[in-house]
Amino acid sequence: MPRRTSSGRIIHLHIDPESGVPIYQQVYTGIRQRILEGRLPAGGGLPSTRALARDLCVSRSTVIQAYEQLRLEGYAEGRIGAATRVASTLPDYSLRAPAGGFTARRPAAHPGRTSARARELVGLTARSLDVMDEAPRAFRAGVPAVDIFPVDTWGRLMARRWRLVQARSLSYGRPFGFLPLRQALTEYLGSARGVRCDAEQVLIVNGSQQGLDLAAQVLLDPGDQAWLEEPGYNGARGAFAAAGGTSVAVPVDEEGLVVKEGRRLAPQARAAFVTPSRQLPLGMALSLPRRLELLEWAKGSGGWIIEDDYDSEFRYVGRPLAALHGLDTSGCVIYAGTFSKVTFPSVRLGYLVVPSALVDVFAAVRSFADFAPPWLTQAVMTDFMTEGHFERHIRRMRALYKERQEALVSHGRRELAGLLEVQPSDAGMTLLGWLPPGSNDVAAAAAAKELKVDVLPLSSFATRPTRPGLLLGYAGVREREIRDGTSRLAQALDLLRNRRTA
Amino acid sequence: MPRRTSSGRIIHLHIDPESGVPIYQQVYTGIRQRILEGRLPAGGGLPSTRALARDLCVSRSTVIQAYEQLRLEGYAEGRIGAATRVASTLPDYSLRAPAGGFTARRPAAHPGRTSARARELVGLTARSLDVMDEAPRAFRAGVPAVDIFPVDTWGRLMARRWRLVQARSLSYGRPFGFLPLRQALTEYLGSARGVRCDAEQVLIVNGSQQGLDLAAQVLLDPGDQAWLEEPGYNGARGAFAAAGGTSVAVPVDEEGLVVKEGRRLAPQARAAFVTPSRQLPLGMALSLPRRLELLEWAKGSGGWIIEDDYDSEFRYVGRPLAALHGLDTSGCVIYAGTFSKVTFPSVRLGYLVVPSALVDVFAAVRSFADFAPPWLTQAVMTDFMTEGHFERHIRRMRALYKERQEALVSHGRRELAGLLEVQPSDAGMTLLGWLPPGSNDVAAAAAAKELKVDVLPLSSFATRPTRPGLLLGYAGVREREIRDGTSRLAQALDLLRNRRTA
Repeated sequence: MPRRTSSGRIIHLHIDPESGVPIYQQVYTGIRQRILEGRLPAGGGLPSTRALARDLCVSRSTVIQAYEQLRLEGYAEGRIGAATRVASTLPDYSLRAPAGGFTARRPAAHPGRTSARARELVGLTARSLDVMDEAPRAFRAGVPAVDIFPVDTWGRLMARRWRLVQARSLSYGRPFGFLPLRQALTEYLGSARGVRCDAEQVLIVNGSQQGLDLAAQVLLDPGDQAWLEEPGYNGARGAFAAAGGTSVAVPVDEEGLVVKEGRRLAPQARAAFVTPSRQLPLGMALSLPRRLELLEWAKGSGGWIIEDDYDSEFRYVGRPLAALHGLDTSGCVIYAGTFSKVTFPSVRLGYLVVPSALVDVFAAVRSFADFAPPWLTQAVMTDFMTEGHFERHIRRMRALYKERQEALVSHGRRELAGLLEVQPSDAGMTLLGWLPPGSNDVAAAAAAKELKVDVLPLSSFATRPTRPGLLLGYAGVREREIRDGTSRLAQALDLLRNRRTA
Repeated sequence: MPRRTSSGRIIHLHIDPESGVPIYQQVYTGIRQRILEGRLPAGGGLPSTRALARDLCVSRSTVIQAYEQLRLEGYAEGRIGAATRVASTLPDYSLRAPAGGFTARRPAAHPGRTSARARELVGLTARSLDVMDEAPRAFRAGVPAVDIFPVDTWGRLMARRWRLVQARSLSYGRPFGFLPLRQALTEYLGSARGVRCDAEQVLIVNGSQQGLDLAAQVLLDPGDQAWLEEPGYNGARGAFAAAGGTSVAVPVDEEGLVVKEGRRLAPQARAAFVTPSRQLPLGMALSLPRRLELLEWAKGSGGWIIEDDYDSEFRYVGRPLAALHGLDTSGCVIYAGTFSKVTFPSVRLGYLVVPSALVDVFAAVRSFADFAPPWLTQAVMTDFMTEGHFERHIRRMRALYKERQEALVSHGRRELAGLLEVQPSDAGMTLLGWLPPGSNDVAAAAAAKELKVDVLPLSSFATRPTRPGLLLGYAGVREREIRDGTSRLAQALDLLRNRRTA
């Protein structure tokens, strides 16, 4: 329906009373769009509110509201009631609306580019994001048995905390996190992991990935080198890349990281990332001589050690090995732990234990990164730990994972013979399976995925060619699904072999 | 009590049955410490388990457990029951224990240094961390009225979600966040802020600070320049510094950012940070001509615009101004919002709306930064929004803040005359007060703090000398405390003036 402006010009406004968008907003949007497109030129008159209201069959107050908004935002000027005009101060260029009008999907027309590190991280996600998908199934790595998590207990603790919540707990909190949780962790890490620290050294983070990211930011300048186990954890590779650092691939052997090789390849590296309790992905522990050698290197070179103790609670033979952190006498170890594996991943809580000398600098970097995890989650985790639920749940998981690993090993021996040699392990939540020499583990993982089995190719952890293998997570998989998953995996690998020999 | 090793050497072990530390662990720790100190040399014998158990008056199984752990960790070798020896493979250096023994507080002896950006951020925190303290009081900025937050409603929604939780919700989720929340935000931002986007462009973060940090990482390479309003927000300054970028101080006038000055100072800046709805800290809106000018600069130069829409919901005259984002036709605006001000800060939720072309790169950077906020908080926020509680709460806060501002203005006029000229504002959660020319606003803030009043000196937002002023937060302060706080502030400023003239 054509509408006349007070200066006689005609404008077209499409009003849809059924759209759910308030009428005043449709009037405002319609006029604004015409102004921006240059169809209503700067300084030109607009219809009187009375005339436009009559033409649109809407109340005059609706039009007044639209004009008021246009005036407030600088599109129009003049008193309401008097002649309202398009603002005369508009710049003399106009932003052309995209072809489909303003409501259409915005085109990716901007010529700006993104940072080099961001582009590097896009390349790295390809190998990592897959395991994060929402529906757990055989043999997704990294996901604990969330089905046995005591949700009722957690819910009860949560309701209790929330019932008594005070205004100060709803405010920002401190960037190092909730003090009682830091105290509970100090006690737990002391007795369970041999980590000796004060609560003030404990920084609560949103998961160990954030811990690695903060550590990289604190320790690395752009261009700095950091040792990474080869094969090793892509999360650490990503954290170093995000900080502008470079990962130096240091080989591992049956004793873990070959420190001597690290010294040869990059003696002046600023940090070394290690998984001493159970190497990710190969599974061996870092031997004592290597631990001492690594500490000696750090002490001598001024390098830092980042210890990722991601699943050390799950050891089925003997007691968990003490953390490397307990051997540190000079304050060079940053220890990273997570609640993702021992409670549930979507709780988004982890922690760092940092040397006393670095407490202030970590607090500063943290406060500009995202501040702190939600108070409620931290408070509930505190109660979960101090009231004994935490250790009870770990014991329960440990017994269950032992059974699940045995199931995977026994089904694997029966069904995967000649296809995949599954290695039992004293610890952890994953097993490594070796493919026949010459196999392509990426192709094997892809074939498995077609039959709805998730496995990680060993080569996805490496920067150089590796013996072909697959990493199988069993912790979060029920026994029945372990059995079925093993069969499907055998089928997939068999199909692949036949395809190759055909 | 002296103990003989099987080779006749004597070792001293101090066992404290009352300490709460398991006995086996005390035996293990004692022997390990002696090995590490070199007092039990490599290859030397250890007492038989039977002899040591008898000497210590503990069960033999306790000693066996300790030896087993030593063996497992590589400190000892030989079969249990046969002669156990200190490992012969230990490196020929020993790590000397610190003076006070291993259990003492670890010294800050490590010679390593931290990154340049980390050191820069330590300098910046001094001006920012103060507002984050836990107990809200007059006139702390940035804290909403948490005392009127509907905690019962939130608790009810939370209990309902948790009662129905499924295993998949306990897992990792996706790095862009919970889809229903992203959909609810798309709708809210469209109607309330004029932001048009698809849910796939919405990234859920842990607060707007994390949003700024991610944006800086995605957009800036080390050394890149970014425009920052002068005076402006230190959170953005910190995010740019963390990414290795440099903030270029671009002046603001009564229309907000002076784009022309930005073009002159740093035409090739990669990003511009703006607070268009209400400039932080001065409070003016970015005028329409300036918005168009800024978009034109971005379009022409390939720069990006980061729009921080931190408290736009609180406008007391007219309707909230539409976001700059709604004028973007080329996809150059990254829009940041937060739930901290409209619900409560410790919920730790915020969001970014990113151009379609940047969705993948933001997802990648995010997945290496910390993954995602807790599922439960996201799910409860979704229900809070879709069931109408959110808008109801905003309306309630808006009415209350208007009253609180009026209280501050009226008490201020009465009590602060000649000391601080408090400016009323059409919007926001803070007011600016001007000190007499020549005053030192840092000294004024310090004086206020002595009387338990928090105010932010205007100069703490600036890199160059500014007209002296104080920023007063009133949103989270009850009227009685506004009155008392105003009196205490007057007292503090009066004392300071007398001290100066004395």
